[in-house]
Amino acid sequence: MKIAVLGGTGDIGEGFALHWAEKHHIRIGSRKSEKAEAAAEQFNETLTLFERKGDISGFDNRTAAEDADVIILAIPYAHVSGVIDVVRPVLSDQIIVSPVVPMSRDEYFKYDAPARGSAAQEIQAMLPEGMNMVAAFHTVASRKLCSLDPAFQCDVMVCGDDRHSKDVIISLTDEVVCLRPLDVGPLALASTIESLTPLLLNIAVLNHLKDPSIKVL
Amino acid sequence: MKIAVLGGTGDIGEGFALHWAEKHHIRIGSRKSEKAEAAAEQFNETLTLFERKGDISGFDNRTAAEDADVIILAIPYAHVSGVIDVVRPVLSDQIIVSPVVPMSRDEYFKYDAPARGSAAQEIQAMLPEGMNMVAAFHTVASRKLCSLDPAFQCDVMVCGDDRHSKDVIISLTDEVVCLRPLDVGPLALASTIESLTPLLLNIAVLNHLKDPSIKVL
Repeated sequence: MKIAVLGGTGDIGEGFALHWAEKHHIRIGSRKSEKAEAAAEQFNETLTLFERKGDISGFDNRTAAEDADVIILAIPYAHVSGVIDVVRPVLSDQIIVSPVVPMSRDEYFKYDAPARGSAAQEIQAMLPEGMNMVAAFHTVASRKLCSLDPAFQCDVMVCGDDRHSKDVIISLTDEVVCLRPLDVGPLALASTIESLTPLLLNIAVLNHLKDPSIKVL
Repeated sequence: MKIAVLGGTGDIGEGFALHWAEKHHIRIGSRKSEKAEAAAEQFNETLTLFERKGDISGFDNRTAAEDADVIILAIPYAHVSGVIDVVRPVLSDQIIVSPVVPMSRDEYFKYDAPARGSAAQEIQAMLPEGMNMVAAFHTVASRKLCSLDPAFQCDVMVCGDDRHSKDVIISLTDEVVCLRPLDVGPLALASTIESLTPLLLNIAVLNHLKDPSIKVL
């Protein structure tokens, strides 16, 4: 499978690239292709360090998206609509995955619910008719994901309206040994899982927990 | 400490009564005192079965609340304002704890955010000026709490604006060996933890998990 991680030069991109690169083609996307190429090169070196093989390449966001089966939007909420504008001409039947969380911080981290209820629903409205969205990966502690630490355990809550698209993402999540996918229902419920990110950030600060993640027991 | 559990004749009341009765006076409240007395008697018998001692009594809601230090509202959202009306004359400096979750179910469980943002904020507005609210216990799987199962582990997310009141509830939570309190910030963030209840219910149904609870790792 070809998986594009747009805005994938940071921790999230690296984490998923390291875990998926042995079985899948990872296409790191960035606004500038050189930045994505440099990140991809570095991720490939990290793979070698972990004695894994893989196929990670870097492109500008549009080229990364063009040929992909799955597109992960590892992008801050404020930049999503700009990136969607850039990739829209090459969007057709890719599965779009949103880990995007609209939030702000004053004294505490706060979820800023968009007008349509969630970032995922906002993004759905920006896509060409008939494309399928899945919301997932909001609570993955990406630095822990990057470390390939076998002790790391994290549940990934997944919601979406298209059964096939959701199953693809659930199955990709299941391939990552430290992650467990949990179906949480339709896209209309995305706000609940998006708001877990500011909740976890507040919990981290107030309770002195580092890179916390969530498990349902 | 005197702890009143209003609407406490069900699983939540029983769970907390069983755990707290050795150290605290538990006052189970109900609309009808006979119902609360019968529940208290049954909980005392269960205590004996578990070879614990304790002090659990039953009263009508107002009497239960009158003499309490802490009042837990184990009441469905729709009935809260009626119960607050009944107990208002005896409210003064008790700490009010809301595990209340406004939600509905069609195909999925759904959080129904009230106008003020959360049930906790709605209840705060119903209380006499200067009384202190804490939101907590929304995600405690009450049947597991009742079983005194030593394997049961659950995080309790606590939010509130008054430091002392929050510390009292955090400390009471910490006394229950299977529960870990987590401070999640001010009452303004209560909607996030209230919405975890419908999220967990959807997760339970869609992923075949029984009485799920949440742990932050």
